[in-house]
Amino acid sequence: MIDLNCDLGESFGIYQLGCDKDIMPFVSSVNIACGFHAGDPTTMHRTVELAHKFEVNIGAHPGLNDVIGFGRRSIKITPQEAYTLVLYQIGALEAFLRAKGKTLHHVKPHGALYNMAAKEEELAVNIAQAVYDFNPSLILFGLSGSCLTTAGEKLGLKVRHEVFADRTYQDDGSLTPRSFENAVIDNEQQAIEQVVQIVQQGKVKTVTGNSISIKADTICLHGDNVNSVQFAKKISHILHNV
Amino acid sequence: MIDLNCDLGESFGIYQLGCDKDIMPFVSSVNIACGFHAGDPTTMHRTVELAHKFEVNIGAHPGLNDVIGFGRRSIKITPQEAYTLVLYQIGALEAFLRAKGKTLHHVKPHGALYNMAAKEEELAVNIAQAVYDFNPSLILFGLSGSCLTTAGEKLGLKVRHEVFADRTYQDDGSLTPRSFENAVIDNEQQAIEQVVQIVQQGKVKTVTGNSISIKADTICLHGDNVNSVQFAKKISHILHNV
Amino acid sequence: MIDLNCDLGESFGIYQLGCDKDIMPFVSSVNIACGFHAGDPTTMHRTVELAHKFEVNIGAHPGLNDVIGFGRRSIKITPQEAYTLVLYQIGALEAFLRAKGKTLHHVKPHGALYNMAAKEEELAVNIAQAVYDFNPSLILFGLSGSCLTTAGEKLGLKVRHEVFADRTYQDDGSLTPRSFENAVIDNEQQAIEQVVQIVQQGKVKTVTGNSISIKADTICLHGDNVNSVQFAKKISHILHNV
Amino acid sequence: MIDLNCDLGESFGIYQLGCDKDIMPFVSSVNIACGFHAGDPTTMHRTVELAHKFEVNIGAHPGLNDVIGFGRRSIKITPQEAYTLVLYQIGALEAFLRAKGKTLHHVKPHGALYNMAAKEEELAVNIAQAVYDFNPSLILFGLSGSCLTTAGEKLGLKVRHEVFADRTYQDDGSLTPRSFENAVIDNEQQAIEQVVQIVQQGKVKTVTGNSISIKADTICLHGDNVNSVQFAKKISHILHNV
Repeated sequence: MIDLNCDLGESFGIYQLGCDKDIMPFVSSVNIACGFHAGDPTTMHRTVELAHKFEVNIGAHPGLNDVIGFGRRSIKITPQEAYTLVLYQIGALEAFLRAKGKTLHHVKPHGALYNMAAKEEELAVNIAQAVYDFNPSLILFGLSGSCLTTAGEKLGLKVRHEVFADRTYQDDGSLTPRSFENAVIDNEQQAIEQVVQIVQQGKVKTVTGNSISIKADTICLHGDNVNSVQFAKKISHILHNV
Repeated sequence: MIDLNCDLGESFGIYQLGCDKDIMPFVSSVNIACGFHAGDPTTMHRTVELAHKFEVNIGAHPGLNDVIGFGRRSIKITPQEAYTLVLYQIGALEAFLRAKGKTLHHVKPHGALYNMAAKEEELAVNIAQAVYDFNPSLILFGLSGSCLTTAGEKLGLKVRHEVFADRTYQDDGSLTPRSFENAVIDNEQQAIEQVVQIVQQGKVKTVTGNSISIKADTICLHGDNVNSVQFAKKISHILHNV
Repeated sequence: MIDLNCDLGESFGIYQLGCDKDIMPFVSSVNIACGFHAGDPTTMHRTVELAHKFEVNIGAHPGLNDVIGFGRRSIKITPQEAYTLVLYQIGALEAFLRAKGKTLHHVKPHGALYNMAAKEEELAVNIAQAVYDFNPSLILFGLSGSCLTTAGEKLGLKVRHEVFADRTYQDDGSLTPRSFENAVIDNEQQAIEQVVQIVQQGKVKTVTGNSISIKADTICLHGDNVNSVQFAKKISHILHNV
Repeated sequence: MIDLNCDLGESFGIYQLGCDKDIMPFVSSVNIACGFHAGDPTTMHRTVELAHKFEVNIGAHPGLNDVIGFGRRSIKITPQEAYTLVLYQIGALEAFLRAKGKTLHHVKPHGALYNMAAKEEELAVNIAQAVYDFNPSLILFGLSGSCLTTAGEKLGLKVRHEVFADRTYQDDGSLTPRSFENAVIDNEQQAIEQVVQIVQQGKVKTVTGNSISIKADTICLHGDNVNSVQFAKKISHILHNV
């Protein structure tokens, strides 16, 4: 079955976020925040322990240094800064796995860093290099067919092309930006159909009505609230039976 | 010769601090700030590269999360928080060494965390455990004869008892707190004599005039300014010829 | 009727905390976080607007610079640092009131800063001075009969002695520290009885069974969850009819 | 004589930056960092006292929330966020003036916020509105002929068009971006000539050799190092005698 991944460990101090425990049974990989856009050492420790219990693949989810903006606001960092901030965060998270005798499975940049890495080649190359330099057998998760997955493949990293159930696509394979009204798919049935089409046919219908090819190694699910957990459960069930 | 160590990598963004390049030739071990009280990913990366060039032992210098206070203000953290914040910072720093195919040599807590770990047993035990869980062959640096070195020894860690050239000692072997007038030894000759006595006789003269036994595996030097670098050069020369 | 106050505006970026809208109808004064332990400029702006709508007294709730610890961990700051960090935060919050043609009503330190100011005279004096220097007609809220209220009174500030419905008291009038099992009153009826006794008789029963005198100008209520809002509603109703 | 302004108070905790005391005698206005990109409450307090002693006009210098990047990296904030973060910082700084019975003279955004406000109209409007809402008699400093000065003028704020001695201009009146080789004027004589031409003729020579009209109400000088202070001294002397 195709990999299902979810962003977790996004609490911060006393601030609780996400239904981490509830989403775990329905995903195969989790991406844990590393303290720059969300997460703090104690939250990371607790989330790693939880993920071990559920035996899911554990990945680092490095982000921009901006808790107030939750790592969703672009910051004009240099490619060199991207390299060092990703390396720092991967190392910080893996420390909690090492303490349990484990190692990281993958790395997926978060939010604005993910989107910047999808489009800006030099940034993408530096992020991929940070992953490679830390451990060349790590898997790099990135937007399907983006600069980031290309950079990873060129370096010889294993790469997972990521697709979204609840986001619409444009004719060039990029996601419709959130500033557009039709960026997000609210209709659950439509989201399910998009996933099934991607998985079965390797194609997705774009906002203009065209059907384009898309690589899909992993699907991003959300665990923010009760509805998103219910959706994850449904998708997980359907994909088990596709 | 006895180990000489120095705290380095304490710049932060555009803020430059310390004469890192100038002090390197005179020390055998360096403790690099990890981003919580000083240092940032780019500074850490640069400092690790510099330390490699000088072939000194590289250690992590984890501190409290307080750049404004430079990690020198006590924060009432729980022992569990001490565990996770030390583990996080060790992992973050080692990432930059791993990218060069190297591993960390030691860990020395910074500032208020160092002082708290010297006196509070449960905190000390948790910090030692974090070091051990990350890598049991790491060496733990702590105030000579303190709770921290004891906690490390009990766990089976290699430990280095640290002494100071420019700080006065009390009869119980603890440092005179900085709030006291006679806490710091400004007179260079007196500081040199203290070091020589410690190294040759294993004894130090206290503020009351007594002479007490003290274990000394490593001496802490400073690299803040031109004078401190000159002092490091002198001490290094003298110890080579003791 | 006695003043009822509540800490509000404690969200941070996307992290939501507290039932601000639900508690507003039952309190007469609110203390708004100022960005150091909780709150951010946008949250402060929104909370000030909400408080205006409900026509409650608006106060600043300055805290220690520690979002991860929610301002609840003591940090060993100097009295001078206490002065500047309180002054900074009062000014920052009042800016949002000024933009509406209003001014602040009071200041109440938060968490660890509140507790430190209750016991450490020099810190208390500096905090009171910051309030006075900003605006001598501001009201200072502090733990009833503490160093902080004393410092405010000596300076000539109007002061409100604060009491708690759900915390137990010791024979010297101080709160039982949270590290003790009997620190918090979970039983709603018991909390109500404590409030009624304080308001009607100016006395409170301590943990040893004694009854001591206590000054009470304002009662601190919580708005964290549905239960705390229900409790606020009950207390508010009872006090209207005492 | 034309106003000369300088950015000050850019130290942060133990990190010292800038020759604040040395530049003061040669400028008429200072812009003090407010804690988001540089500065902290204690530094702000000290810098306000220093500025009073030298009897210069004191302005707020609000920046993006990014100490590591010194506020020089663009962050994609919303116009509403720009409004609240400027309002917050103006209030915070004015608190230190109020404690001395004074009020702010002007506001000048810092770094990336300054540059974004020069080009993005909605952002500029919101920043100008924050200044106006805090105090409509404040003076707004912005890049000469930019979106920010226009927004201020439309609101009815007094505005000062700022020019630079050591930056080159393009034909449209904008500064040559720092990413271009010829962005900065290193040659002191050339910088002086540019200032004199601007002040005497209201014109500046652009990088293409054209001469364009430019409004100049204030000149930005730097106080980073000994050379910049010497340059400020020279410029100040020349302008006194123009």
